[in-house]
Amino acid sequence: MSSINRQVRLAARPSGRPQAADWEFTEEAVPEPGPGQFVVAVSHLSVDPAMRGWMNAGASYIPPVELGAVMRAGAVGRVTASEHPGFAVGDHVYGVFGVQEYASSDGRGVMKLDTSLAGPTTYLGVLGPTGLTAYFGMLDTGRVKAGDTVVVSGAAGAVGSVAGQIARIKDCRVIGIAGGPDKCRAVVEEFGFDAAIDYQAGNVRKALREHTPKGVDVYFDNVGGEILDDVLTRLALHARVVICGAVSQYNEAAVRGPANYMMLLVARASMTGMLVFDYEERYPEALAELAGWLRDGKLVAREHVVHGSVHDFPETLLMLFDGANTGKLVLALAG
Amino acid sequence: MSSINRQVRLAARPSGRPQAADWEFTEEAVPEPGPGQFVVAVSHLSVDPAMRGWMNAGASYIPPVELGAVMRAGAVGRVTASEHPGFAVGDHVYGVFGVQEYASSDGRGVMKLDTSLAGPTTYLGVLGPTGLTAYFGMLDTGRVKAGDTVVVSGAAGAVGSVAGQIARIKDCRVIGIAGGPDKCRAVVEEFGFDAAIDYQAGNVRKALREHTPKGVDVYFDNVGGEILDDVLTRLALHARVVICGAVSQYNEAAVRGPANYMMLLVARASMTGMLVFDYEERYPEALAELAGWLRDGKLVAREHVVHGSVHDFPETLLMLFDGANTGKLVLALAG
Repeated sequence: MSSINRQVRLAARPSGRPQAADWEFTEEAVPEPGPGQFVVAVSHLSVDPAMRGWMNAGASYIPPVELGAVMRAGAVGRVTASEHPGFAVGDHVYGVFGVQEYASSDGRGVMKLDTSLAGPTTYLGVLGPTGLTAYFGMLDTGRVKAGDTVVVSGAAGAVGSVAGQIARIKDCRVIGIAGGPDKCRAVVEEFGFDAAIDYQAGNVRKALREHTPKGVDVYFDNVGGEILDDVLTRLALHARVVICGAVSQYNEAAVRGPANYMMLLVARASMTGMLVFDYEERYPEALAELAGWLRDGKLVAREHVVHGSVHDFPETLLMLFDGANTGKLVLALAG
Repeated sequence: MSSINRQVRLAARPSGRPQAADWEFTEEAVPEPGPGQFVVAVSHLSVDPAMRGWMNAGASYIPPVELGAVMRAGAVGRVTASEHPGFAVGDHVYGVFGVQEYASSDGRGVMKLDTSLAGPTTYLGVLGPTGLTAYFGMLDTGRVKAGDTVVVSGAAGAVGSVAGQIARIKDCRVIGIAGGPDKCRAVVEEFGFDAAIDYQAGNVRKALREHTPKGVDVYFDNVGGEILDDVLTRLALHARVVICGAVSQYNEAAVRGPANYMMLLVARASMTGMLVFDYEERYPEALAELAGWLRDGKLVAREHVVHGSVHDFPETLLMLFDGANTGKLVLALAG
């Protein structure tokens, strides 16, 4: 076990795409747990589009990461030292431990993992905030029902791939939008969507007309931009648009608003933003259901694991904006 | 009674602001009623922003007005001849009679008016589609409740002035956005809003911050464009944005989408389009309640009546886009 804790801190607020100069690498002594605390050796970091928003100044749904602070990140790891009655050395845990090798915690917001059910990375994906976002976004905000035509953007991504599978489980017809033939193949063959549209091949509107002859009842949007505008032209009466993310816009100086938003009036449709944190009380029921689907083989968990060190975090983050990952992007730290 | 029926027909689909060449004036003989029909002498035409949308090609919530057809318009008038058992000569009626002096009808979609309750123009405004749009938009789509902070754009307009008054009746704090000091005065002094913001005076965002310290629970949008973006920055948690219209955008070649739509996620808010036609079954209850408020002096009906002939319709329509009217815009035809 190392005595050094390597960390990645936010050095500057990026304008547009994050650059090397926006980050600072620091080293500290591995912390010792105080009374009521424990220390975690982080094994896997969750790498998420939302991180880009946390790097901006200004109020959002959570405060920004302060300049000079360790970058915020969900992570899993094992307890290496404990003065906390609820956590023992060796426990596998999930928490917002940050982009660093060791974190101390008082246990707030930390969940012990049942590794007999699934490997630790699954708790960053299907059985973590990612899967819960897909679950509540599709079932609660999207209110999918059997027979609905559902479109998911970012369909090969972490949340999108799970969201579409949940809609399939609920007997919807599900169309995924993803970038490139490999991802589109994964969307259909691995994640079991009914069809995939490759936005890099152009003419998303035409493809949507072909694949959604009766219109779109639920659109689960992870990307924003032109694709959101394309899908808005296809809304069925009383459609629900779930705003989960807008990864195409996070590095843009001027966000492109949906010019076709008046289709909400034409279709008497709604566009609703959702955040998983609002559903904390219902996490246990959702996780039980997600775990059941996973066990029964109805839900495929795919992780895209990059092996490296915390120093690889800045580059790994950029993979999200380059569309380089399929499934949940995870940075595994060499132990 | 004239034997000539003067009409205004759509001659061309406007690009941008409608021009004189987009219209054609025609004259026909006043129709005779066939079996099961009656003929109405139109006295007042409803002049509405939605008309601009009906002039465009392409599917919307109703089919476009065909080139060469009499321009679609809601109107009130009196029956002058009848072969219909349900309508007698002299009856005051509301219907979509079009921009013409006489219309024949089989009674579908036609409502007989109780002129002891209110004058005929009121049935184009508070007791017509205008008032019903405000009623269902605010109460059903907006789901206002006592104590909510409500913002209404186009607050001096036909729908906006009624929508804000309904929110006041429901014990909300109501802020209107309107153009110019005269309209803002009417919004507060005549329609009883708590405050008005003059968008022509600039800095709507700053004024919103001052007037909505706890954020905006319900935004009833009639205008779209920059004002919609301004209000999106002020949404309170679980806010409801009612999309009723976008008059600032109807003559624009490229609609400005709301660049701040991701505030829907930050606030876990929704943006929902509404159309009054969906509530047809509930018109009677709504009209009874609106009429009660009107009788009790809780609701002020204001009409902006232009006196002229059908030939004045094209110019009267433009008043809406120039912000020239306060309250419901009506073209009264010299009898």
